[in-house]
Amino acid sequence: MTENKNKPIAVFDSGVGGLTVLNDLIINFPNESFIYLGDTARLPYGSKSQDTIKKYTEQNLAFLKNLDVKCLVIACNSASTSFLENQFENLPVFNVIEPTVKYAVQQTNTQRIAVLGTKATIKSRIYENKIKECNLSMTVFSVACPLFVPFAEEGLFEDPMTNLLAYRYLSSLKETNIDTAILGCTHYPLLKIAIQKSLGSHVQLIESGNCLAKEMLDFFHKTSLQSNIRDNKTIRLLSTDENSFLYELAKKLKISEHSISFELVNII
Amino acid sequence: MTENKNKPIAVFDSGVGGLTVLNDLIINFPNESFIYLGDTARLPYGSKSQDTIKKYTEQNLAFLKNLDVKCLVIACNSASTSFLENQFENLPVFNVIEPTVKYAVQQTNTQRIAVLGTKATIKSRIYENKIKECNLSMTVFSVACPLFVPFAEEGLFEDPMTNLLAYRYLSSLKETNIDTAILGCTHYPLLKIAIQKSLGSHVQLIESGNCLAKEMLDFFHKTSLQSNIRDNKTIRLLSTDENSFLYELAKKLKISEHSISFELVNII
Repeated sequence: MTENKNKPIAVFDSGVGGLTVLNDLIINFPNESFIYLGDTARLPYGSKSQDTIKKYTEQNLAFLKNLDVKCLVIACNSASTSFLENQFENLPVFNVIEPTVKYAVQQTNTQRIAVLGTKATIKSRIYENKIKECNLSMTVFSVACPLFVPFAEEGLFEDPMTNLLAYRYLSSLKETNIDTAILGCTHYPLLKIAIQKSLGSHVQLIESGNCLAKEMLDFFHKTSLQSNIRDNKTIRLLSTDENSFLYELAKKLKISEHSISFELVNII
Repeated sequence: MTENKNKPIAVFDSGVGGLTVLNDLIINFPNESFIYLGDTARLPYGSKSQDTIKKYTEQNLAFLKNLDVKCLVIACNSASTSFLENQFENLPVFNVIEPTVKYAVQQTNTQRIAVLGTKATIKSRIYENKIKECNLSMTVFSVACPLFVPFAEEGLFEDPMTNLLAYRYLSSLKETNIDTAILGCTHYPLLKIAIQKSLGSHVQLIESGNCLAKEMLDFFHKTSLQSNIRDNKTIRLLSTDENSFLYELAKKLKISEHSISFELVNII
C-alpha cells in the first residue's frame, strides 16, 4: 500500500486555466505526483450561479478523493468561492483565494488592491471580504473581466484585440492609486502582458499559483506530507470532455515535457 | 385531457441564443403555447465534443418530452449536429439546420454560400454536407467564429470591438463571390449589424428562426397540428441555472411583452 505522503496531489479546475496553477506546483514540488482534473464538459464556471458551481465542485472533489490522493487543490477561483472549507471528507483542501490574499496584503504599499475576476468571483465579494479580514484599512477595487477567459482559450495571449479589451476593463483603475492587482482567475496569467500594459508597470500582478505553492510547502513541512519518492513521479491530466486547448496549453506551459498522460473521465 | 394539437411546442437550446428562434416562432405561431428550455448550467455546447453534446441533447429532449408537449424543436445548431433524426420517442423533432440549408440554396444566385458557426458546428461539416446534398454544384465556405457567442452574451451587439472581431473572422470571405451567408448559430443574429458590415450589403444573411417557422407551418398544416385555442396561450422559459442574460434577452426581443414565466429546473 502506498504511504499517504507518496500519494499524488489532486488539482481540480473548471477547465483548462488551472494548468497555470498546476505548472507552478510542478515547479515548486519536483518530487510530487499530480492528478489534474479539468471539468471541460461543463466549463466555464465563472458565468454560472453559486449553487451550480458548488454542486459541480463537490462532485469533482468526491471523484478525486476516490482516486486515492493525499490532498485536494481547487485551482479555480470561481469554484473556490463556493468551497472555502479546508477539509473534504478528512482530506486537506487548498484553494487559491486565501494564499493569494495573504500575499497581496503583504505586498501593497498604497494599501489599495485591485481584484480582477470572473463575474461569479467578483459577485461573491470573496476577495474583498478576505482582504478586509486581513487588514481593515485596505481599499479594494473589483473588476469583472468576463471576456478574458474566452480570449485566453482562443490563444489571443498577445494580440491587439486583447490590449483593447484589457484597456476597456481596466482603464478606470488608473485613477485609484493601486500598486497591486490580483489575477483572480487562473486564465488571467496567460494575458498578463496586456493586463500589465493597461495597469502600468508600477502595478504588481499577483498570480495564484506561486502563492498557493508557498502555502502548501509550509503545510507539507509541518505535517511531513512531502513525498520521499524521487523517481517514478507521474502527472495525469484528466478531463471530462475532449478539449484541444488542454493539449495546447500543456505544451505552451511545458507541462508536456514531463512524462504525462491524458485521460477522458466521466464524473456523473 | 388536452388534445394533442393544443399541447405546447417545446424549444430547446444550449442556453440563451435560442430565444432568437423562439421569438420568430412566437411571431409565426400566434396561437401556440411554448416551453423553452435553456441548458444554462452546461452552456456553451459549441466548444464541446460531439459525444458530450449528444448526451446533453438527449437528456434535454427526454426532459421536455415528459412535460407533455406536441413536438420538439432543437433551436441550437451545435445540438442539431448531434441529433438529426426527425423523431424522438414518437414525437416530431425539428432542427434548425435542414430548413436553413433549404432556404439558403434557394436564395443564392452565385451558388457560393458562407456558413458561420461555432467550432463544433463547423467541425461537424453538417451544413457543408447538407448543402451539397441539395445541390452538388454549390461551393461552401465555412468559418468558425468562436468569440461571437461570448460577445453576444456580453451584450456587445453594436460595438467597435464586435466590428473588429467580425472583420477578423470574415474578411477572408471578401474574395469568394458569396451572395448568401448562413448565420449557423442562434446567437449570431444578435451581431448581424457587424456581420453585415464585414460581408458587405450584397450578401444576404440567413437566420434559422424564420426558415424553421416556414418548415413547421407546412408540417402543422399537413398534419393538422395547429392549436385551435386563441386565448390562454402560455410561454414558459425554463433554464437549468440562473442567467441574467436570459432575462435581458427576453426583454430585448420583446418576448417579455407576452405573458411569460421563468422557472429553474434540474435535468439530471
